[in-house]
Parts: sequence; structure tokens; C-alpha cells
Amino acid sequence: MVTHVSVGLLGLGTVGSGVVRMIEGNREELQHRVGCPVFIEKILVQNVEKERLVSINNEWLTQHPEDVLQNPNIHVVIEVMGGIELAREYITLALQNKKHVITANKDLMALHGAELLQIAHENECDLFYEASVAGGIPIIRSLVDGLASDRITKMMGIVNGTTNYILTKMDKQQRNYEEVLKEAQALGYAEADPTSDVEGIDAARKMAILSTLGFSMHIHLDDVKVSGISKVTQEDLEYARQFGYTLKLIGNAKKDNGKVEISVEPTLLPDSHPLASVHNEYNAVYVYGESVGETMFFGPGAGQLPTATSVVSDLVAVVKNMRLGVNGKSVIAPQFDKQLKEPNEIAGKFFYRLYIKDEAGAFSAITSLFALHDISLEKLIQSPVDHKGVAEVVIVTHGTNKHQDNKVYNLLRDSEVVQEIKSHYRVEGA
Amino acid sequence: MVTHVSVGLLGLGTVGSGVVRMIEGNREELQHRVGCPVFIEKILVQNVEKERLVSINNEWLTQHPEDVLQNPNIHVVIEVMGGIELAREYITLALQNKKHVITANKDLMALHGAELLQIAHENECDLFYEASVAGGIPIIRSLVDGLASDRITKMMGIVNGTTNYILTKMDKQQRNYEEVLKEAQALGYAEADPTSDVEGIDAARKMAILSTLGFSMHIHLDDVKVSGISKVTQEDLEYARQFGYTLKLIGNAKKDNGKVEISVEPTLLPDSHPLASVHNEYNAVYVYGESVGETMFFGPGAGQLPTATSVVSDLVAVVKNMRLGVNGKSVIAPQFDKQLKEPNEIAGKFFYRLYIKDEAGAFSAITSLFALHDISLEKLIQSPVDHKGVAEVVIVTHGTNKHQDNKVYNLLRDSEVVQEIKSHYRVEGA
Repeated sequence: MVTHVSVGLLGLGTVGSGVVRMIEGNREELQHRVGCPVFIEKILVQNVEKERLVSINNEWLTQHPEDVLQNPNIHVVIEVMGGIELAREYITLALQNKKHVITANKDLMALHGAELLQIAHENECDLFYEASVAGGIPIIRSLVDGLASDRITKMMGIVNGTTNYILTKMDKQQRNYEEVLKEAQALGYAEADPTSDVEGIDAARKMAILSTLGFSMHIHLDDVKVSGISKVTQEDLEYARQFGYTLKLIGNAKKDNGKVEISVEPTLLPDSHPLASVHNEYNAVYVYGESVGETMFFGPGAGQLPTATSVVSDLVAVVKNMRLGVNGKSVIAPQFDKQLKEPNEIAGKFFYRLYIKDEAGAFSAITSLFALHDISLEKLIQSPVDHKGVAEVVIVTHGTNKHQDNKVYNLLRDSEVVQEIKSHYRVEGA
Repeated sequence: MVTHVSVGLLGLGTVGSGVVRMIEGNREELQHRVGCPVFIEKILVQNVEKERLVSINNEWLTQHPEDVLQNPNIHVVIEVMGGIELAREYITLALQNKKHVITANKDLMALHGAELLQIAHENECDLFYEASVAGGIPIIRSLVDGLASDRITKMMGIVNGTTNYILTKMDKQQRNYEEVLKEAQALGYAEADPTSDVEGIDAARKMAILSTLGFSMHIHLDDVKVSGISKVTQEDLEYARQFGYTLKLIGNAKKDNGKVEISVEPTLLPDSHPLASVHNEYNAVYVYGESVGETMFFGPGAGQLPTATSVVSDLVAVVKNMRLGVNGKSVIAPQFDKQLKEPNEIAGKFFYRLYIKDEAGAFSAITSLFALHDISLEKLIQSPVDHKGVAEVVIVTHGTNKHQDNKVYNLLRDSEVVQEIKSHYRVEGA
């Protein structure tokens, strides 16, 4: 008989403070939902003396991990400290000590999720991680439960708020990348070292987690092809607009005939696509299922309370399971062996922005390269550039595959009439 | 030990056929998800001789309800026959015979949901109804589990595909209501008698279900104020566009200080609102939680396979519960007593389109009525009309409350200078 539940936290940063606020502030509702009171027992911090932004009981604080991990009073451990190796060690210890674990740590789950879920299973413990993908959006639960009956064949996500904020401001205010990045850093939307966000690594971790669940196939971070937004220019955004597209950093996961492709890359979306109107720091995940068709889940991708909402909703699920005596039963091992598509199986349309020599025959040399590889062109603009003797050519191809496109890319790069390939992006649609 | 699960269906219309297709077509995935095979045992139909559009085993069909409801081999009954009284009787019998029930029947759940959930609880059976709201969108699960930790204060839904289709076509193609309704009927998007859809009754049923769950308060269908779209004109849509709004039929549920308002009515949404870009037959539910902030769940609101996806996802949940021995434990009684807002507690902005006498002082008589009731105006247009001596005045107010607005409405209706109040809608925002 579960009469109460005691929680230990690892970390009391932004998300940890939000979790404390929600558990304390929504006490009555929480008790009504789960059927018994929920208490905070201990919180592991680096410095118990540090001033806190959230109102806490000083007896909760400890600098000793064992006060949480080996505390016999604690039923559930919430890991919100971040980082990889230490978090992995602590979560492993907590599970081995038969404590259920909730984590918001996407880096950890993308790299070691399968291993940790296995340890949880062996110890008959829950390990939930809704907050690790898309902050406040209950996307993991929607994939695992809500769409449980369907065959998911496509997921596209705007799963990094920082890059979506930067691209939105660049696009709507015609400002350049460096300027908007600085603003995002000043506002706290981007880290001092923004590499993980702007180069797409953070989004890739989330796509590894989503595609493992959605495709029931163990996808590793290394399986995700990644490119970021740091090279995106105002010109790219303007041409995209002119052609009826919106440029977004898209996590793209597709399954065809049992084989998958997963990438994170700047992508031109048709303006009519549900993801094209997801702006600023918001996240959204578009999911296509064979039976359900198009669905989309939209919400805040980060932030203290949105992320805490997902953590505490996981806590509700853990406590319900405790009261029913069914913890550790919800993980389903991947059904399928991983099969990645070859480049010639990856269908797509592509956007090129080229600087070419402004001389007779140059333009036709370019277009004939595409024609020779059976790639027809959907849109094409040529305009003079300020630089002397240089013309700009912008192309959106019709549907082809990545193998053909790679060949054309390499030939363009080596062509005598091409001065530079300024941009090369994926285009969604058709 | 659950070694297999047998299912009985009540009804084999559009959704029932979709359920059969999914159970048969996704057999292996389904078995992997739930850990045991799932079989169809019996299907109650009106005429076993009728030709079917889905491939079925003739031994499944029966015209005798007891072959499903009292069949000792059947564990789960799926009700997809529709209607109210007979469905209520059958579901009650099934539950009393200890069979878990899944239903897609919003009419029934909006009217008798509380009673049926109580019967399910007493019989330790599951009663799930994800498909009753917004077809393929897992919105019930998102409210109950995904946002379980948050205080939901606002839900706005486009929860009727027929009316959203009609309004989209009227708006984008500048066609009138009657013409688009006929087209929708020809395409099967609207019923021969479209009353329930176009007058907002169907949407009201869904809002009663959603607000009961989201606000943890028993909301009855009668608590929902309803008006439909049959009076919406091309002029309304044009003025909305001109003012930067999109007119949609919105189910609106708000909670402030423990009191709620629930309505279904044509509403002008700012173009930047996430619901404003939900077009055609699609549905979406916008949910605002105190902690999570803005979220939105988008997808197909109807259709054979989308609806079947929700039904079969419910089936996955029932079978998982069976294997864990925890059926009938998931219902949470409403936490709060129902308290409805008084009109003076319902904040809002309002849109008026008036025909007034084109004479000196008329215009100022109108605007002074608003001023006298402390309602300031955000937008105002006056233009001549073809009719002799008549001018058209279109107004969007700033924020006020329903009590003040009712007073102004009545005074305008009775005013000597007002020939007719052509339109009067709610405006979202501010």
C-alpha cells in the first residue's frame, strides 16, 4: 500500500527549481491525481550555501549524492543536473537501488537510453524521459500511447527552440545571423557557446530518441546526418520566401519499406506545411502515420515550467504505476532491426544558390549538369551580382534522390564556371 | 495470464470497418506492442447478408446483440454503432458482463459519460473514448496524462471538421454558405441533415467532454452555450480578413478563479493565433496550462482510419492493462464542483456588423451607446450599402464583458437608427 511518495532531485538549476515549484504549488491537484501526497525529501546541489531563486526547505539540500541515491526513504529520483557521465552513473545507481527515475536529459538518453532502459527493466523500475524532447509537448507519450496502433512512416520536428528563434528573427526582421545570435544569447535563448544548438547536435539527439520510439528501431546519434544553421544567409531566406517556402532547421525521419533515413538540416518547407508557421522559440513535431495521416504537436520546447510540466507529468505516471504495482513494465524493446537507407533510396528535392561566371555558356553548362543526371528543375532564377563578372543562380529541383544530387553537387563544385556553391539545402514537398 | 485477447464489435459502418482493417492489417505490430495476439470474435450488424467494403470472415457476423454482449470468449467490446439509447444499453450490459469497452460515441459520452464511467469503475472495467473527440488526435490522453501535472486554464478547439471545411472554402474561394454546404454534402463531409454540425451541437458535445477532463469538473452538454455557422456571410469573412482576423467555429473553454465558461461560437481569431491556420476538414485543440503555456494538438478530426487509429490505440491500452491486471483503475473523479461564470465574469471582445440609417447623427448614436457602457472600440469601418439610405458599420470592440455587451446588443437591436444587426461574434485576443 503506497501511502505517500518521496522524491529526490539531482540538481536544482532552472528545470529543477521549476519541478520544486510545481510539486509545492500544485500539491492538492497532484494528490488528487495520484491518490496520495508527494513530498520532496532531498535535493543534490553543488553548494548548499548558494542563494536559490525558488523557495526551499534548507533541510532538503545536500552535497552528498548518496543522500539521494541510497536514501531508503526516496522512491523516485528526478535527474535534472545535465551532463553525461556523472548523470549516467547516478541514474544507474538509483535504478540499482530500486528507485524510479525521471530525466530531462536528452544528451544522456540519445547516447545511453537503451542501456539505461535495460537497467530499469532489470530492476523493475520506471525510467521516464518525456522532458528530454520538445520541453512541454507530450510527444513521447503521444507516439508511444496515442498513436500506438498506427505505423508511423514520417516525423518532422522543429525540436530546437534556439535555432527556430534565430531563423524566425532573421526571416521576419531581415537581420543577419551573427546579430540575432548575439540577441538570443543576451535573452538567454542561446548559450555562450551555441555550437550544440546552432550546429544541429541538440536537435539530432532528440531525433534519435523520437525515431527510436516512432520506428521501433534502435537509432543511434551517429545514424543522424547533421548540418546546422550557422551558414544560413539573408539571401537564402529571401529566395525561399520568393519561391513560397520557409526555411527551418528540420529534424527529418522517414521510413520506407523498412529502411529509415534520419537527418537534421536546414530545409525549405512549403508555406502551407503545418510546421512553416511554427515561429520563435516554439517547437513542434509533425507525425505522419499510415492510418491517422497528418498530425502535429505544438508547444514550448524549453523553459523552466514547460519542461517541469513534462517532468512532473512523468512523476504522476510513476506514482500511478507504484499504486497499481506495475512499475517497470512499460518499456517495449524495438521491434525491428535497424536498416538505414542508401543515398539512392533517399528521395528529395534540393535548393542551390550558386555564384557562376557571368559568361556565355555558363548558365547552360549548369543546367545541363542537372539534365544529364535526370534532375529536372522546378524553379530557377538568374540575377547579376555586384561582384564583377559574377552571376547568381538559384535553383529548386524537382524530386530526385540524394545519390544523384551528390553527383551533381560534386560536379558543380569542380566545374570551371562555378565560382562557389553558396548554399545547398533540402526542400520538403512533392 | 493473458494469452490472447478477443474483441467484439458493435457496428460495422465506416469506423467499424476501419477498426477491422487495422486489427487485421497491423497484426504483427499490434502483437509486439501488447505482448499477445488480438482476434476479432464477433461483429453485431443489422444485416449479415449485406455486402461489406472490408474483407471479413463471415463467421464473425451476427444480428444478435447477446452474441457479443454475453459472449464468454469476448474480453473487449468496441462500440462503433452510434446513436444514444441503444448504445447506452449495450455498453451498460457489456460492462456488467465484465467486458472492457471502447467507444467512439461523443453524443453518448457527452450525455451519459459520467454514469457509464461509474458503471465501468464498479465492474473493474476500462471504458476508453479517445476517438469521441477530434478523431485521430490523441487529445484525451494528452490532457489526462501528458499535461497531468499542470493547471489547465483555457482550451480552444476546432473540433468539427465539417464546419471548418465550409468556413475554409467560403473564406479562400469567396463562395457562399449554401453552395459550399452542398459541395460538402456531395463529398461526404457533411450529412444530408447537417444541423448537428453546422449549428455547433457536435462541437458542443466534444467541448463538454474536453472541459470535464481538462478542468476536472463535471460539465454537462447544457452548460455549453452554442451558436453555429449557418448565418455566416461572405461580408463577415471579408471584414475579418481586412481587420487581420480569421473567422472559425471555436469551442471555447476558460477557467478563472475556479469558475468556468464553455461555448461554441463563430469567433474571430487573430491571424497569428495557432488555430487560425488550421484549415479544411482538419481539427486542432489549443490548450493553455499555467505552467506549460501554449500547446496545440493538430490532426484529422474524422475519417475511417484516423478515427480507427484512436479506437485501436485505446485497445492497446486496454490490453496492456489486462496483462498488468489493472483495468478499471484509470478514471479520476472530477476534483472540483461545477461553477459557471456569470455574464459579467466572461471577458471578451466583440465584432458587430450593423445596417444603420444613413442619416445625420446615426453613426454617433451608435458609437455613444458603446461609450456609455465603457466599451472602447478597436476598429471601426463605415461604408455605404447598395440599399437606399442604409450604411454598414463594422466594429471590433476592445475588451469588455458579456454582461456589458449584452446590454449594448439589446440597445442596438431596439435603437431607431439601427435597421438590423447583421452579425455579432466573439473576438479572441487581448
